Amino acid sequence: MHKQRLVKPDGRSLILYSRTPLAGDLVAPSPNTSPLSANAHLRWHPLRGEWVAYASHRQHRTFLPPAQYNPLAETKDDGHPTELPAAAWDVAVFENLFPTLLETAHDPPDLIVPARPAGGACEVVVFTRDSETTLGKLPLWHLDLLFEAWADRYAELGARADVEYVFAFENRGVEVGVTLPHPHGQIYAYPFVPPVPARELHQQGEYHAAHGRGLLEDLFAQEIRENRRLLYLGSHALALVPVCARYSYEVWVAPLRPAASAADLSCDERRDMAKALKTVLLKFDGLWDRPFPYIMVFHQAPTDGQPHPEAHLHIEFYPAYRMRDRLKYLAGSEIGAGVFTADTLPEEKAAELQAIEVDLG
Amino acid sequence: MHKQRLVKPDGRSLILYSRTPLAGDLVAPSPNTSPLSANAHLRWHPLRGEWVAYASHRQHRTFLPPAQYNPLAETKDDGHPTELPAAAWDVAVFENLFPTLLETAHDPPDLIVPARPAGGACEVVVFTRDSETTLGKLPLWHLDLLFEAWADRYAELGARADVEYVFAFENRGVEVGVTLPHPHGQIYAYPFVPPVPARELHQQGEYHAAHGRGLLEDLFAQEIRENRRLLYLGSHALALVPVCARYSYEVWVAPLRPAASAADLSCDERRDMAKALKTVLLKFDGLWDRPFPYIMVFHQAPTDGQPHPEAHLHIEFYPAYRMRDRLKYLAGSEIGAGVFTADTLPEEKAAELQAIEVDLG
Repeated sequence: MHKQRLVKPDGRSLILYSRTPLAGDLVAPSPNTSPLSANAHLRWHPLRGEWVAYASHRQHRTFLPPAQYNPLAETKDDGHPTELPAAAWDVAVFENLFPTLLETAHDPPDLIVPARPAGGACEVVVFTRDSETTLGKLPLWHLDLLFEAWADRYAELGARADVEYVFAFENRGVEVGVTLPHPHGQIYAYPFVPPVPARELHQQGEYHAAHGRGLLEDLFAQEIRENRRLLYLGSHALALVPVCARYSYEVWVAPLRPAASAADLSCDERRDMAKALKTVLLKFDGLWDRPFPYIMVFHQAPTDGQPHPEAHLHIEFYPAYRMRDRLKYLAGSEIGAGVFTADTLPEEKAAELQAIEVDLG
Repeated sequence: MHKQRLVKPDGRSLILYSRTPLAGDLVAPSPNTSPLSANAHLRWHPLRGEWVAYASHRQHRTFLPPAQYNPLAETKDDGHPTELPAAAWDVAVFENLFPTLLETAHDPPDLIVPARPAGGACEVVVFTRDSETTLGKLPLWHLDLLFEAWADRYAELGARADVEYVFAFENRGVEVGVTLPHPHGQIYAYPFVPPVPARELHQQGEYHAAHGRGLLEDLFAQEIRENRRLLYLGSHALALVPVCARYSYEVWVAPLRPAASAADLSCDERRDMAKALKTVLLKFDGLWDRPFPYIMVFHQAPTDGQPHPEAHLHIEFYPAYRMRDRLKYLAGSEIGAGVFTADTLPEEKAAELQAIEVDLG
């Protein structure tokens, strides 16, 4: 993997990842040229015991840009620079123009609850130069390189003193609020360990202390033995509809070995993760022969300076639909009580996805 | 308040609440006549440490019924019984025809994670006989009676040995998945304390142990002193956009005294809660002169047989829109990390709602 780091005219960073070397004289474009004036703060929610992020400059962010303007396309010679240069990069990462978390956040307001600057980082991960393709259609070598880029961001952001958790995710489809079809994800680098991974790590920590093995390691061994909900099983990675899926078509992708993060994957593990991921994505898009909307998230070890023998990297997919043309609404029980109510069984949904044949190319 | 309990032909219960006495010879109708064959189970999610409910019979439930058929209207003499009789009831509660939780749940499957019957109850709370009105338009005496009905359900369901938490809520609007416009809410009686209230009670418990006072009691005192985000302040209840609002237009309604539940409210407190609630609802609907979609939930003391001096009844509203015509999508950060990102400030949203004048009638 080749990597080139550039700085945009407004000070934001741009990192280009590629399989082949890039020209040495690249210039980082930006639709924005003045220095960012963004600021953001966190407020403590005493009743829930969690931080809430406020970035009020974001309400004026670009929304539904005209079809001819795609900020993630390569810059053409038309006087409208995008976020990316024309070059042979394969994956690109740049700092979000409208960040919710930013290293330079400052001067939180004086409130009746604790407040602090919303430090950290918000990055955009452009999966490919091709606006017309999808993540699942990318060749395996490209997905492998994307995992290398995710690993690189985990290591680099995680090494920052102000970052305790590196969270990579993709929101896909208008059903989850995404209007830009160019394949891309995001990375939020939080200055604290967020509640959902914190809860999972707590559960994993208790299990690890009691059994000396990983919770997911043992759960996956049982899933493999039972072999009812598996979608992919390679030498190093698997994909499955978990027995306790909260969403219809919920899928997890993970290395078999409890690798703590993307940065902890061996080359062989990364390649098998690419195969597992591609299998899932092609099954999703093949299910109804249309792009399948979802939220995809990485849960991995915090970068808080503590040892995390309990952590086990896994990717979770939360699909938007519970069946064809029927959205799953998160309503009273899910949002207000935290109890997911499913009207389909994981075994039924696994069977639907198992039936979709895919060609990994 | 008058209360009459009836049994439907399929065995489900119907309770009618009214300000004036009802006729003694009422018969409970039902669109369904055969005994319910519903079943449901819970699976333990070891990674999140929570129960997930599976009720696969629900996928075949009525969806978008024809306009002429409203199961919550009073039954007419047209051969199509609804869920409710024609009578002078004001509020009605009946067992959901498609329950996610039910007292007779049995025989959970044998799985690689713990499973148990999805005991408990799912009830529908019909707020009024009038299909054309809204909750906020109901007169104060009617809202007061509704609070009495909520209190009655809390007491009765909570007294059951299999019920540890009584959760009243309203999902309102197609934006949150509701297609039946007749004003109604629901009650889920869970056989465990759900994760969201459990987390809040944990926070409240730690505060109470440290300070000997309630967390919300003290937070409300500070909110009243600061007086920036209040929407209603009466002798016994208040409504406000909390300083740590996660949603745009998020509002809490609560008694000033830390009453543990709806059943713990005095008559005066109930009347003031009705005023606070009506104020909020009219402000919401007045904001853009259209019905304002939201999820409304009651957080109150568990009914698990333990003392809960830390509990303080409060109603939380989670609105669907973050600004006019812009839905708030819960995406990667909110769903996958548990970190809410707001692009508006609670103070701005409170000011917008404060500016809406309301007439309590």
